[in-house]
Amino acid sequence: MSLRFNKESLLAYIEHVFPQMKGEFKIEELSTDTTKVRLNVSDRHLRPGGTVSGPSIFGLADISVYMAVLANIGFEALAVTTNCSIDFMRKPSANADIISDCKLLKLGKRLAVGDVLIYSEGSSEPVARASLTYSIPRSL
Amino acid sequence: MSLRFNKESLLAYIEHVFPQMKGEFKIEELSTDTTKVRLNVSDRHLRPGGTVSGPSIFGLADISVYMAVLANIGFEALAVTTNCSIDFMRKPSANADIISDCKLLKLGKRLAVGDVLIYSEGSSEPVARASLTYSIPRSL
Amino acid sequence: MSLRFNKESLLAYIEHVFPQMKGEFKIEELSTDTTKVRLNVSDRHLRPGGTVSGPSIFGLADISVYMAVLANIGFEALAVTTNCSIDFMRKPSANADIISDCKLLKLGKRLAVGDVLIYSEGSSEPVARASLTYSIPRSL
Amino acid sequence: MSLRFNKESLLAYIEHVFPQMKGEFKIEELSTDTTKVRLNVSDRHLRPGGTVSGPSIFGLADISVYMAVLANIGFEALAVTTNCSIDFMRKPSANADIISDCKLLKLGKRLAVGDVLIYSEGSSEPVARASLTYSIPRSL
Repeated sequence: MSLRFNKESLLAYIEHVFPQMKGEFKIEELSTDTTKVRLNVSDRHLRPGGTVSGPSIFGLADISVYMAVLANIGFEALAVTTNCSIDFMRKPSANADIISDCKLLKLGKRLAVGDVLIYSEGSSEPVARASLTYSIPRSL
Repeated sequence: MSLRFNKESLLAYIEHVFPQMKGEFKIEELSTDTTKVRLNVSDRHLRPGGTVSGPSIFGLADISVYMAVLANIGFEALAVTTNCSIDFMRKPSANADIISDCKLLKLGKRLAVGDVLIYSEGSSEPVARASLTYSIPRSL
Repeated sequence: MSLRFNKESLLAYIEHVFPQMKGEFKIEELSTDTTKVRLNVSDRHLRPGGTVSGPSIFGLADISVYMAVLANIGFEALAVTTNCSIDFMRKPSANADIISDCKLLKLGKRLAVGDVLIYSEGSSEPVARASLTYSIPRSL
Repeated sequence: MSLRFNKESLLAYIEHVFPQMKGEFKIEELSTDTTKVRLNVSDRHLRPGGTVSGPSIFGLADISVYMAVLANIGFEALAVTTNCSIDFMRKPSANADIISDCKLLKLGKRLAVGDVLIYSEGSSEPVARASLTYSIPRSL
């Protein structure tokens, strides 16, 4: 199946629909069943001590799976997060962006499931893992 | 066990340590094993259509359990989120704060577990449920 | 909405469809959005030291939500578990049945979500909590 | 770090401690941070229609992470499951064993986290994914 977006058009679409995300994310890689997304870490994502906040890590995991789903089903469809489980395993590095490695494990007619590992840039040990389920209410 | 904080001192402590949260939350109720916390919803928490964003809902669930733990163990101790599972069940109302109902199910020497239901103010059906685990690395 | 089963007919139906469960469970309570189910703990559910096994606890949580869903939608419909998150918080008592307290938080056209606390009989502190999502593929 | 067990001695140890598991599992592969474990599917693991039951899939995920932890910390230590999140994504094949692909994402002094994909033998699409946290109460 060919993708409905490339990296540039997908990010442009996301930033059009969610203007408050403008400049927050960068899509590093995009394929039929993977995405790699960078969170451009700035002050508002930080906690004292230079740690990236939990909601920011959650947000990166969530958008990474959303992008993987959207790239496949296109923007006419609707997809909403119904479940997330996330493990916070290590403290993110100070002064580093965080980057997701997302794999789409299932893309069904009604449900999609994605798995995400999140790294501080330059580190090989993940700071978090997450899995998310999206419901796709409108049939494709 | 008597609590180490009351509603006012707990919020003051949280806002001192996490200044970026200033004005974001209000503690409605606090007991030995429950918290009820309001997210003062403003523009930065919203998504198009007036929906409260996923990271904001996650953040409210997280801080609600954190407050319940901290109220019991005091600020000398350390507590970090290690796991969260969250189900998004209904679309939050537009133009309403969201409020958590948190119950501490376990407060062990090393791990604490809290359960959270999140409601749009004025609605009786929860928009989300979450459970979170905190690790308490320093012995009490 | 009136229920499609009572306690007796629901258990009879479950044991007819899943004969290997015969005698394993007892429905203590059943209402439109709650179930209370007992696992008759026997040797095959135990681990050394008299602890109830993780898969047995999972199985009780799963069937409790399934029963809550089925009681509402009837047996003509189909419902399959798509997600479970479970926290094991305390060691179950030796020589005691385990009992679930299940609340149906959402019963949508496509997804149902249930929350479960599991207790050793006679104890007031839960041994586990779980939340489960069921997908209801056939429209009702 | 060298492993405290090889495939044979690890399985022998597990079957010694949990005699009711005798013959149920086979360790296909074992390395410092991965395990691959087979569930020898028999009648007691099945549901009508030849599907492997949820508790059986959960059990395989659980033992796979347990084996990965134990191989590293040895049997003198203690490790108990504290959390599991699991997504059931596809119906297991009838008449096929299920096999896990487990990766240890974190092995800390107090917590270990493992990620598991589960496949029906001969199929390349996972039937389930799971992540589990083990608490390691005794210091190593």
